[in-house]
Amino acid sequence: MKGVIASRAPGAAVVDVSHGIPPQNVLAGALVLRAAAPYFPRGTTHVAVVDPGVGTDRRAVCIETAEACFVGPDNGVLSLAAPPERVRRIVELENPRFHLSPRSRTFDGRDVFAPVAAALETGTGVSDLGAERTDLVRVSLPAPVREGATIRGEVVYVDGFGNLATNIEARDLPSAVARMEVAGRRIDALSATYGAVAPGAPVALVNSWGVVEIAVRDGNARATLGIGVGAPVVIVGA
Amino acid sequence: MKGVIASRAPGAAVVDVSHGIPPQNVLAGALVLRAAAPYFPRGTTHVAVVDPGVGTDRRAVCIETAEACFVGPDNGVLSLAAPPERVRRIVELENPRFHLSPRSRTFDGRDVFAPVAAALETGTGVSDLGAERTDLVRVSLPAPVREGATIRGEVVYVDGFGNLATNIEARDLPSAVARMEVAGRRIDALSATYGAVAPGAPVALVNSWGVVEIAVRDGNARATLGIGVGAPVVIVGA
Amino acid sequence: MKGVIASRAPGAAVVDVSHGIPPQNVLAGALVLRAAAPYFPRGTTHVAVVDPGVGTDRRAVCIETAEACFVGPDNGVLSLAAPPERVRRIVELENPRFHLSPRSRTFDGRDVFAPVAAALETGTGVSDLGAERTDLVRVSLPAPVREGATIRGEVVYVDGFGNLATNIEARDLPSAVARMEVAGRRIDALSATYGAVAPGAPVALVNSWGVVEIAVRDGNARATLGIGVGAPVVIVGA
Repeated sequence: MKGVIASRAPGAAVVDVSHGIPPQNVLAGALVLRAAAPYFPRGTTHVAVVDPGVGTDRRAVCIETAEACFVGPDNGVLSLAAPPERVRRIVELENPRFHLSPRSRTFDGRDVFAPVAAALETGTGVSDLGAERTDLVRVSLPAPVREGATIRGEVVYVDGFGNLATNIEARDLPSAVARMEVAGRRIDALSATYGAVAPGAPVALVNSWGVVEIAVRDGNARATLGIGVGAPVVIVGA
Repeated sequence: MKGVIASRAPGAAVVDVSHGIPPQNVLAGALVLRAAAPYFPRGTTHVAVVDPGVGTDRRAVCIETAEACFVGPDNGVLSLAAPPERVRRIVELENPRFHLSPRSRTFDGRDVFAPVAAALETGTGVSDLGAERTDLVRVSLPAPVREGATIRGEVVYVDGFGNLATNIEARDLPSAVARMEVAGRRIDALSATYGAVAPGAPVALVNSWGVVEIAVRDGNARATLGIGVGAPVVIVGA
Repeated sequence: MKGVIASRAPGAAVVDVSHGIPPQNVLAGALVLRAAAPYFPRGTTHVAVVDPGVGTDRRAVCIETAEACFVGPDNGVLSLAAPPERVRRIVELENPRFHLSPRSRTFDGRDVFAPVAAALETGTGVSDLGAERTDLVRVSLPAPVREGATIRGEVVYVDGFGNLATNIEARDLPSAVARMEVAGRRIDALSATYGAVAPGAPVALVNSWGVVEIAVRDGNARATLGIGVGAPVVIVGA
């Protein structure tokens, strides 16, 4: 992919956001892209290739927002970074003029998304890439459930440190937390930092994505707690 | 290595092709370099450092082809990307003027290959790097064996997804495939995409390198099938 | 972090030195930074984020030396690359003007170190970043112990190949080595290269950092020898 971009858009700055998305994990890719994209310059072209449906009839798309373009498969991996209210235009990448030829059936990253990104970087308009579409495949996060002073959520992502990000956003939190449970295990009330608890102890905090995260100080929460995506998290307000 | 290049060839664009080659696996490095190099711009300098013989009397070389220069150890890692018919010149990297001093015995990537690449990027001619040589260490892939309508090949590379690439090229395939076996296990006839089979099922297809690959849909073929490099693959024509 | 730098210092060249430091391993980060930094151009800004104390009252600092600036947490990760005799100035990163706002409690890499690095790259002076400090948290390597012709050291770092770097520097070595022991196991006298021993055999040599390293030819010393950081290494002079 980088060779294609270097060939077709010499001088374009290419940045690796992550090579650590678990294989075929569209939701993890979508979460990481949503977290990273806002920090890039206006006008950036973001390319995401978590693409288990490559070669099938799943669409390839470019989503234009006010800030950026998102290029990749229409399987949801782009959808969290481009929420409906920010989408200006969705175009299906049908115009073979901007694809490599021959095009393999197993690597659209190289054969479609990279050359399309290079085209955008060198002045091609979004509308030249193909026909406009009105629908998009979206991944959805489970919504946390509120019952009185209690919020029930779950782990939705595990990062490279084994930290467990949940679907509970900082704004969902009660003003004071009485107690927390993660997969049935009691955890001390929300801390501000990893260092607020003893080494090896579990800790819950609001992480850099703005969501509640379960970690283990100086350790790996996934390994220590033996839990992962889907594990229930309960927060009870004081 | 990147520090050396930034110091000696400021502004040169440096691209990471792979940090995932298994340690000391010269053949894997050679296959990945062969697959990636054609997509880079004409005039690119490719550096490969899979170099278990570093510090011994194995040569360090620069291979010039019509398209690119390849810099690295003369152990075969460069050889698949620079097949004999494309080689213009092979030079042994003997001229210490283009090496770091002192030069360690364990990291020619930093001390020889990176500074030589920087020299090439800043206008040094290939012939200044050392004396011309006529021979090169080449790795060879096992050739698939054809017996009537049957082709017998083997797995030669496992990628980061656990997909198993074979030595059987698309052009070797019979016009119709009656059946396939991988390590004695029957696999459905060749598919076009990963998505053509049920999740968790093995699938054989022509991959983005143009060779037959065994995968498991939404899974890891190496782990699921329990096989790796050397596993026999049999394709019977219809 | 790269998005922040691309936004605030467009055109700045960003180089990844390592994403392979074991989580929370400040000493490993400090060793790798010390090894890499000298090869980068004068004036480079180095950013290191091994930061288990993020969000606590551990300081964030910029260390200026004659050659470079080092930006990161004041937990020792920068300290080996900036030994006391080379430090010109230490500044605490207190000026919020150069931080992202809001600033999370768990990712100063993104919110403080990256924007500070971008500020330095775009002409901000070190003294604008905050108040000058005179102290710095330093990590210390265990010192090897010399008893007559014998040097006793230990493994201090394991690289991605499983090679075991020790705290014994080349200049500590006796002119001739009579015998070596690693974790009680006899190893042949110091070799010059990995290739000097039989495949699968352990080998001791001076590595590209200039320290004694224990490796296994074409193998992984950590796995084969079953040892890691802290394992004792004894070298007896002839």
